[in-house]
Amino acid sequence: MSARLNIVPFISVDHMMKLVLAIGVDRVLTDLAAYIEEDFRRWDSFDKTPRVASHSEAGVIELMPTSDGRLYGFKYVNGHPRNTRQGLQTVTAFGVLADVGSGYPMLLTEMTILTALRTAATSALAAQYLAPKGARTMAIIGNGAQAEFQALAFKALLGVDRLRLFDIDASASRKCLRNLAGLGFDITVCASGQEAVEGADIITTVTADKQNATILTDNMVGTGIHINAVGGDCPGKTELHRDILLRSDIFAEYTPQTRIEGEIQQLPPDHPVTELWQVITGQAPGRSSASQVTLFDSVGFAIEDFSALRYIRDKLPATGFFEELDLLADPDEPRDLFGMLLRAKAAAAA
Amino acid sequence: MSARLNIVPFISVDHMMKLVLAIGVDRVLTDLAAYIEEDFRRWDSFDKTPRVASHSEAGVIELMPTSDGRLYGFKYVNGHPRNTRQGLQTVTAFGVLADVGSGYPMLLTEMTILTALRTAATSALAAQYLAPKGARTMAIIGNGAQAEFQALAFKALLGVDRLRLFDIDASASRKCLRNLAGLGFDITVCASGQEAVEGADIITTVTADKQNATILTDNMVGTGIHINAVGGDCPGKTELHRDILLRSDIFAEYTPQTRIEGEIQQLPPDHPVTELWQVITGQAPGRSSASQVTLFDSVGFAIEDFSALRYIRDKLPATGFFEELDLLADPDEPRDLFGMLLRAKAAAAA
Repeated sequence: MSARLNIVPFISVDHMMKLVLAIGVDRVLTDLAAYIEEDFRRWDSFDKTPRVASHSEAGVIELMPTSDGRLYGFKYVNGHPRNTRQGLQTVTAFGVLADVGSGYPMLLTEMTILTALRTAATSALAAQYLAPKGARTMAIIGNGAQAEFQALAFKALLGVDRLRLFDIDASASRKCLRNLAGLGFDITVCASGQEAVEGADIITTVTADKQNATILTDNMVGTGIHINAVGGDCPGKTELHRDILLRSDIFAEYTPQTRIEGEIQQLPPDHPVTELWQVITGQAPGRSSASQVTLFDSVGFAIEDFSALRYIRDKLPATGFFEELDLLADPDEPRDLFGMLLRAKAAAAA
Repeated sequence: MSARLNIVPFISVDHMMKLVLAIGVDRVLTDLAAYIEEDFRRWDSFDKTPRVASHSEAGVIELMPTSDGRLYGFKYVNGHPRNTRQGLQTVTAFGVLADVGSGYPMLLTEMTILTALRTAATSALAAQYLAPKGARTMAIIGNGAQAEFQALAFKALLGVDRLRLFDIDASASRKCLRNLAGLGFDITVCASGQEAVEGADIITTVTADKQNATILTDNMVGTGIHINAVGGDCPGKTELHRDILLRSDIFAEYTPQTRIEGEIQQLPPDHPVTELWQVITGQAPGRSSASQVTLFDSVGFAIEDFSALRYIRDKLPATGFFEELDLLADPDEPRDLFGMLLRAKAAAAA
């Protein structure tokens, strides 16, 4: 066998940025949405399980595995809302794609940036099926790390080019405004959530507090709106007033997980919810009237990460943005693991 | 904050070998047993969950997480019995130790070698409580990748120095004999399992077939023996005849997992089993008579990997056998993930 069995390609943060910039952020978002859509179309091919979460007072560490029977992927991701006070990211992530046939990892990659991209791509993909026709104006409430990615994804996939930004911390909105300058948006920074939603076709909520909050109250949401609720993503963390949920048609990624982690944790466990894959495959309607309020209750799901890992794997050969990691013990004879150690000792002594 | 938040120490296979050789294999095995014993003593401090397994026709890929509330660890491990036919390892593994407070990974390490070491250390630790007093002779049935590690751990922790080896593939026994030459053992290669167990105080079974096999039949096991059953470690994979189980006192790591994966999957779900931590803490007896047959039904548990990850972390500063991995996105301002991408673009254009 090849002497390279020990090597797993590794995509560092630096390489991920180079890869994304070489392809172009808009193109990556569009491509990721296509990969996710393709995998959601073959929903039944996947092992699905709610993520494996380890909760603590400070936050949560989660493992999100899935497999389509040929490839296996998992992501490690944390969520620690108070991290920013120490200059740390709220969310960091890395992931692995592996070959089901051999169990060998095929790549290891940073996924903080990749998660930001796939989350935005998933939101925009859902909005293609759920947002009102011709939507051009989006309110973004919560202008943290995810905000620009959401804006760019909705521009790339739906043509949204008017943004109304609000954050309880005005410096976050200014950061967002600065970063999106020159990228083709007409941007209004607003003084309240109420002001932000005025005239919006789409409302994206993406705040970071780990608690039940009410970012949107019922009177703020008019008819015909699509709500893209991204920030409610763990038990006890929601963003929308319950009354909004009661007059919305609700769409989720994977209902058993969303009932635990999403906005719908506020509702009885039998409240009707449509899964996005059902809409994508035509088994359920998406938006069916101009006056309907649609809600995508997004908590993020392992298949989206799987799709993102597949995408990175496909882009590696042409872009070459990876290192080689000596991750897997590869003795000359598979059963001779101890012999490998002995030979390393002999080599060191020579 | 430091500009080093993006860095996670990585221990490659090469560095793990250097670390183990620098400390010495015997010392590492003894140290690991002490770390595992320490963690088993504080059993109640840990989040415990059966591993998250993804089974396929070819094998299994598992994630094994646990946490003591301050540290979080998980291991990725596969088990693919037919891999050796393609020159691949049956088992490969890597793992991560993380800080519960921030969710940030603290180290990423190869764990193929480390798992071989901790498995053997756990077996020997259990045998310290369960094997007959003064045991010096061990039969090892199955002479694959784990065999030498078992031998060395039992020598280091119990003084076992007479080995009786058997494998259905004689070349595996010869490999084992060759690797252990000069390490202080009196070794007999045997022509059958029956011959191997003659005069043995301890019988270690560690074969690799993913199926119900009968490596030991009832008539092969005399009174007073300790059986260290390492190879039955997934559903449908067992090594011992059921009759042996019925006349043994059975000890396990974490019973809910062992009932699914261990030898005791052959028994009713209420068959009495003692957990090893209960023996270590003195809440339950280990070996209580010279005639008793004791059985350690070992399938491997996440806390053992956690202990091994802790050990490696403690050894890193002094040994320096690690690389720095650019794994975590670390923008100057935590909410400015997209700005980091923009600055990378500007830097590339400059």
